[in-house]
Amino acid sequence: MNILVLNCGSSSVKYQLFNMDNESVLAKGMVERIGIEGASLIHYPEGQEKVVIEKEIPDHNAAVQLCLEALINPTYGVIENYNEINAIGHRIVHGGQISNSSLIDQKIKDMIRDLIKLAPLHNGPGLRGIEACEAILPGVPQVAVFDTSFHQTMPDYAYIYSLPYELYENHNIRRYGFHGTSHKYVALRAAALVEKPLEELKLITCHLGNGSSIAAIKYGKVQDTSMGFTPLAGLTMGTRCGDIDPAIVTYLQNQGYTSEEIDRLMNKQSGVLGVSGVSSDFRDVESAMLEGNDRARLAWDIFVYTVKKFIGSYIAVLNGLDILVFTAGLGENFISARQAICKDMDYVGIEIDENENKVRGCEKEITAAGSKARVFVIPTNEELMIARDTKNIVSNVG
Amino acid sequence: MNILVLNCGSSSVKYQLFNMDNESVLAKGMVERIGIEGASLIHYPEGQEKVVIEKEIPDHNAAVQLCLEALINPTYGVIENYNEINAIGHRIVHGGQISNSSLIDQKIKDMIRDLIKLAPLHNGPGLRGIEACEAILPGVPQVAVFDTSFHQTMPDYAYIYSLPYELYENHNIRRYGFHGTSHKYVALRAAALVEKPLEELKLITCHLGNGSSIAAIKYGKVQDTSMGFTPLAGLTMGTRCGDIDPAIVTYLQNQGYTSEEIDRLMNKQSGVLGVSGVSSDFRDVESAMLEGNDRARLAWDIFVYTVKKFIGSYIAVLNGLDILVFTAGLGENFISARQAICKDMDYVGIEIDENENKVRGCEKEITAAGSKARVFVIPTNEELMIARDTKNIVSNVG
Repeated sequence: MNILVLNCGSSSVKYQLFNMDNESVLAKGMVERIGIEGASLIHYPEGQEKVVIEKEIPDHNAAVQLCLEALINPTYGVIENYNEINAIGHRIVHGGQISNSSLIDQKIKDMIRDLIKLAPLHNGPGLRGIEACEAILPGVPQVAVFDTSFHQTMPDYAYIYSLPYELYENHNIRRYGFHGTSHKYVALRAAALVEKPLEELKLITCHLGNGSSIAAIKYGKVQDTSMGFTPLAGLTMGTRCGDIDPAIVTYLQNQGYTSEEIDRLMNKQSGVLGVSGVSSDFRDVESAMLEGNDRARLAWDIFVYTVKKFIGSYIAVLNGLDILVFTAGLGENFISARQAICKDMDYVGIEIDENENKVRGCEKEITAAGSKARVFVIPTNEELMIARDTKNIVSNVG
Repeated sequence: MNILVLNCGSSSVKYQLFNMDNESVLAKGMVERIGIEGASLIHYPEGQEKVVIEKEIPDHNAAVQLCLEALINPTYGVIENYNEINAIGHRIVHGGQISNSSLIDQKIKDMIRDLIKLAPLHNGPGLRGIEACEAILPGVPQVAVFDTSFHQTMPDYAYIYSLPYELYENHNIRRYGFHGTSHKYVALRAAALVEKPLEELKLITCHLGNGSSIAAIKYGKVQDTSMGFTPLAGLTMGTRCGDIDPAIVTYLQNQGYTSEEIDRLMNKQSGVLGVSGVSSDFRDVESAMLEGNDRARLAWDIFVYTVKKFIGSYIAVLNGLDILVFTAGLGENFISARQAICKDMDYVGIEIDENENKVRGCEKEITAAGSKARVFVIPTNEELMIARDTKNIVSNVG
């Protein structure tokens, strides 16, 4: 069974085609700059050289068409024709209060559309990707895998804000959490590595990238996660502020800022970029810090400190910790950040081995002798998780 | 040396007159409903019956006048005349980046005035109290003791938000923290109880009342505290929401709420009141919960959970904990809340004794055998702390 996984962003489409008989990747690639000058497709067929096609790509429909054509291209394609695509799995950021991946029908499409107002940058493109596939591959079953689903297992006291309860009932304002597919993947992988069922483990999974979130997972269910109603909340990120005193928003408005300016400020001009004034890229910030830039040092310290605080708060509510996982761009590759985060955490049971930690982008245990919790670097694989969910759902329907 | 301590709120003035030779209270009391129908003074002279005076009290000047007259009243006064008041200490909520209590001069008054925009409900009344004393007791030295001062010892990575750095430089937006005088008092008291210098201890002090905050104190300096730029941030409180995803503010504005409505909503209609729909009083909420009200149960759970998370995050960044203190209205009196907060916290080193915990409003160690950290209930005494600071400053000047 071949499953195509699509991840549609505001101006990009990423794809991977899996042979689910052995979970191998037949091809992957991405379209960038949809509707913008300089658009392109980069296609990586397994075992062959990459292919780059530069051409105007006006919309998501054209982008999906281009990805599909690459897959069946006589020269660099990996399948003969579209009949070899048995199902399509879509990454959809916001699934509201849906707790499972879902076969896409009119009801699911309506729900994704209704949730556009909660995830304006993501759910719209996701829906366009679904509709493009319907047009090009009519009759092929499609599955939506939501970033929010795994977090739906949180207890109410972790997801309800201390706001008037009516805001939850009437405006759906609650903690949703994001990166759920990634947190679930690395949690399952960690359980496999320690050879215990997820249902017997207490884990904290740190998805640290340009957007970052942490999840506390207790016996297979999410106990808490750092992102909230939106992906702005929680940790300091590349350009996002994470949690701040909410009164700062209304204070700035009284100083003359508009609501739109503050939204942009909190999402695009904050985080390590805003503090350091150097870059949203943690590598640049670290370099500047090592050259003596004090605001870069401050941005770095704030990031590390915020991660430590979240880990500590989750250890308290889990009343213990079996496994700590680092994943995503920073988590997998940033040796010094992992080192700084885990420094002086022995009281709460975390100690890593400095030498074992010298690893980038591969699966590795980095626990130090004597550490109560085991610590792992685990590259995330949201696409494989989506393909697996898609396979399960399509197989059960079939 | 007699020192008068004044705490001026938006419609109230609280006072205590101390004989600082032995730190005894000669009299205390409060004026309520300043400028509102039904105003009154309640005066408690030491060793005598309380006196209640009901009369129109148009402003803070009249309120301070009334308090002072009560102190020298031939029948229920406690001093002969105003010459027996050697100095006055004022509780001032916002001291900006001032790290010490300060003798009040024109510069300090100007600073308190400049900070009214950061603490509109508090610094104005504080300034009016200072000016009333200047008029009625000219030449008597006055000292300002700021709620923010103790927290000025925080490291920059704990007080700088991940916002554009210019907001700190140009708008003074940073974490200030409040209840500093209370946190300092109970921290010093705890150190005395364990007979160790504060400079050798790691403490977490929980000031839990209608407004609540937690502080992490490392070797005599504040490491972090839960309130932020304003007293809205941090924990769930009686009517305040504490930390929420800041994007909720701009989201609600897009739904038609004004900035003022959201400020009121977050400050006056949220917290346990907003979630439970029952009351801002935790006792009412607990009663409703015990009668089966599920939203009351939820409000209670959120409060307990939030406190646990802060304690955990602070234990992580302290990398240990010697002493946990509960103080203020809830912290001193609410047995079941302390029990719930400390439940299942043994992994992070906190265990309390259920029987020892059955105590209200008095100083008591409630640590269980085997607990790594020692846990205390310590009634706060901000007025005594203010009187001590005032005595020290006035004595050094003299």
